[in-house]
Amino acid sequence: MNSRETLFVADGKLNIGNFEASALARKYGTPLYVMDGDHIENLCKKMIDAVAAYGDGAVAYASKAFATKATTRLMDKVGMWFDAVSGGELHLLLTSGVNPKHIIFHGNAKTEREIREGVSADVGYFVIDSISEIDRLDAEAGRQGKKQEVLVRINPLVSAHTYFAVQTAAPNSKFGFDIEKDALDYVKDINSRKNLVFKGLHIHIGSQIYGHSSYDVAVDKMVDFIVKLGEVGINCHTLDLGGGYGVYYTDEDPKFTPESTANIVKNILARLAVKVAEKGLGKPFVIVEPGRSIVGEAGITLYTVNAIKDFGVKKYVAIDGGMFENPRHALYDSQYSAIVCDKADEPMTEKVTLAGKCCESGDIIAEDVPLQKAEVGDVVAVFTTGAYNYSMSSNYNLNAVPPVVMVKVDKADLIVKGQTYEDILRNNVVPEWI
Amino acid sequence: MNSRETLFVADGKLNIGNFEASALARKYGTPLYVMDGDHIENLCKKMIDAVAAYGDGAVAYASKAFATKATTRLMDKVGMWFDAVSGGELHLLLTSGVNPKHIIFHGNAKTEREIREGVSADVGYFVIDSISEIDRLDAEAGRQGKKQEVLVRINPLVSAHTYFAVQTAAPNSKFGFDIEKDALDYVKDINSRKNLVFKGLHIHIGSQIYGHSSYDVAVDKMVDFIVKLGEVGINCHTLDLGGGYGVYYTDEDPKFTPESTANIVKNILARLAVKVAEKGLGKPFVIVEPGRSIVGEAGITLYTVNAIKDFGVKKYVAIDGGMFENPRHALYDSQYSAIVCDKADEPMTEKVTLAGKCCESGDIIAEDVPLQKAEVGDVVAVFTTGAYNYSMSSNYNLNAVPPVVMVKVDKADLIVKGQTYEDILRNNVVPEWI
Repeated sequence: MNSRETLFVADGKLNIGNFEASALARKYGTPLYVMDGDHIENLCKKMIDAVAAYGDGAVAYASKAFATKATTRLMDKVGMWFDAVSGGELHLLLTSGVNPKHIIFHGNAKTEREIREGVSADVGYFVIDSISEIDRLDAEAGRQGKKQEVLVRINPLVSAHTYFAVQTAAPNSKFGFDIEKDALDYVKDINSRKNLVFKGLHIHIGSQIYGHSSYDVAVDKMVDFIVKLGEVGINCHTLDLGGGYGVYYTDEDPKFTPESTANIVKNILARLAVKVAEKGLGKPFVIVEPGRSIVGEAGITLYTVNAIKDFGVKKYVAIDGGMFENPRHALYDSQYSAIVCDKADEPMTEKVTLAGKCCESGDIIAEDVPLQKAEVGDVVAVFTTGAYNYSMSSNYNLNAVPPVVMVKVDKADLIVKGQTYEDILRNNVVPEWI
Repeated sequence: MNSRETLFVADGKLNIGNFEASALARKYGTPLYVMDGDHIENLCKKMIDAVAAYGDGAVAYASKAFATKATTRLMDKVGMWFDAVSGGELHLLLTSGVNPKHIIFHGNAKTEREIREGVSADVGYFVIDSISEIDRLDAEAGRQGKKQEVLVRINPLVSAHTYFAVQTAAPNSKFGFDIEKDALDYVKDINSRKNLVFKGLHIHIGSQIYGHSSYDVAVDKMVDFIVKLGEVGINCHTLDLGGGYGVYYTDEDPKFTPESTANIVKNILARLAVKVAEKGLGKPFVIVEPGRSIVGEAGITLYTVNAIKDFGVKKYVAIDGGMFENPRHALYDSQYSAIVCDKADEPMTEKVTLAGKCCESGDIIAEDVPLQKAEVGDVVAVFTTGAYNYSMSSNYNLNAVPPVVMVKVDKADLIVKGQTYEDILRNNVVPEWI
């Protein structure tokens, strides 16, 4: 557990803001996602400060990590911009009152509808990812009589994480144009299109990155590429450096603070400033796109223990959640830290596997992790579940997606209502011929 | 592609029942799940016949593979029983008109609410999976003044598949009571409980199993265990042998037919009949629980190609679906067969990776698989997507869960409407203090 002012143990109980975690579990039921609104706000502000220390730029939150109307409003108020990666995310952002100019529309396989809706909404930037998108976006902007500003996703061939699924800038990645092959030609093509306005470049080098060294390599490569663009008369106004900043899941990870996370960004941008000065270029408008680092540690999931099995060599604590509300262990072998909320002062004498309730052996939340001695009925908290848990939740086994409560010091309220059985089956239809 | 009467190529086009696949895609949009109702019905009937050839028993469909009201009705009509693994599945079955006595309630970590609802609904059997469930179910049945009939999940220590997540009877699995350790003691305990009626045993040895040899080993072990129960005066009325029968995904798998799948069941039950006769026992009431084998090959997913990237050593065909509607490659490294619907007669000269539209490198549907030369705008079909695709679908990246259409020869209709943006955000709430 990575304690902070709004996440701490007092009188043997886990507290989030001014609330005992077990009291939230009793009030809203389990499983329950809890989001710490203060921590989110604090991180957003520190990231915005880090960009301000560099100069012109923006912090665009990667909505895919955790996207709700409430968190979007909260982030919008403190001055965040936003990524959208689908028509659904675009709809969320627009209906939450985000200025469309603060939206960056990503995606390797945007649909016709998404391209149409994005152009129609006047989003700030489309990030072009493929050859076919050049033609399709140019045509759609033409149909709508608009000039769409675009960034171009470049694969800088820098990869900063060993796990394949979250390693996005390896050679032959599904994303972007290869910096060493045809990227320059495609930027020239885009720059020549009638209905597209080339504004700059975008990269994303991976996920759960702890420091700035990989970013530095990428920054150097991108500045060199910007020099190349200048040589053919193309100005790069904007450089979007993507996200990927790490969070604390277990003791394998550093214990970040909002300050230390923001410092990584400061260091990257300081490097960028030095590098462009060396090349005699002006500072580009810079965008950074944190997702997990903004919401990851803000999230805690609360569960009730429903069964315990001790095989000696392996002990299962089976809880009322599972891969339907957190598929990250099943997908990536991810690990988590946990605590028995009302036994928080007791020593972690056990090594347990937190098993979910789905009918699948791989339905595990965390494997062989330290825990206090748990009993059936105990409320267990799993930490750092704010990113890629709710956003990846499903109705697998027809389990309901749990509610989300936001805590802001002395306030706690639902920001997503839990699904009912009726919600799960809402779109079912039975044709009369069955 | 494993052709059949209702899935074939004619005039260069893929057909499902009397419909061209590309015409369904145009009518309902993509991505689109298509379910072949005839194939489902045919498989159910063949499985029921296989059990009838043995004697008394039932075929209980494992709802978790694909659960909708329409398919439940269809299966109920031909005489299937059903598994439920959650309150949500129980609700689906009851509201679809299934006789509660035909419902078997599974789960390693049933919640208090699920236990209450299951007892209240008078489900046929609860399958007890843990020590805590003995106490909790006994108490709840007592509170409701009922005698609940139960099966006991036994881990027979036979595992029939190499992939961990679908290997459910390995030592130290999260499921069941260990046959070589304390299973007998717990059956005795259950048999002594006031509000529980011990009726028999349940096992499940794995998934995607091609033949009957692993089942035979499990059957032998279970009959030996039934003998042991007899020695302490406990009668085993019912033996539930679970599911796990394989389907054809790629040429790595056998090409099953409804007959060949049903023959596996016939062989297993023939072995059971011989084995109980050897031991001088009567034939137990037998239950088999196919899931994937009933719906897997009935399902086809249709996509539109949105982008193509050719790196020489690797070629991506990016479609408008992805891990939000089929997470099996991301979860299990699963492979699929695919076809360009309207180029079905052309040779498969390409080796492509079908990439999804999610912002994640691991968002792949199938890797390096043969395909005709595809172009942006083509409709591509992926086969054998009926099981664990729709049922595992999510709103990841705020993509909408696609609609499901059922085809029955000359009829085609929606059985699940596609989600709208409003559906995705339906349960969002914004507290006034944000």
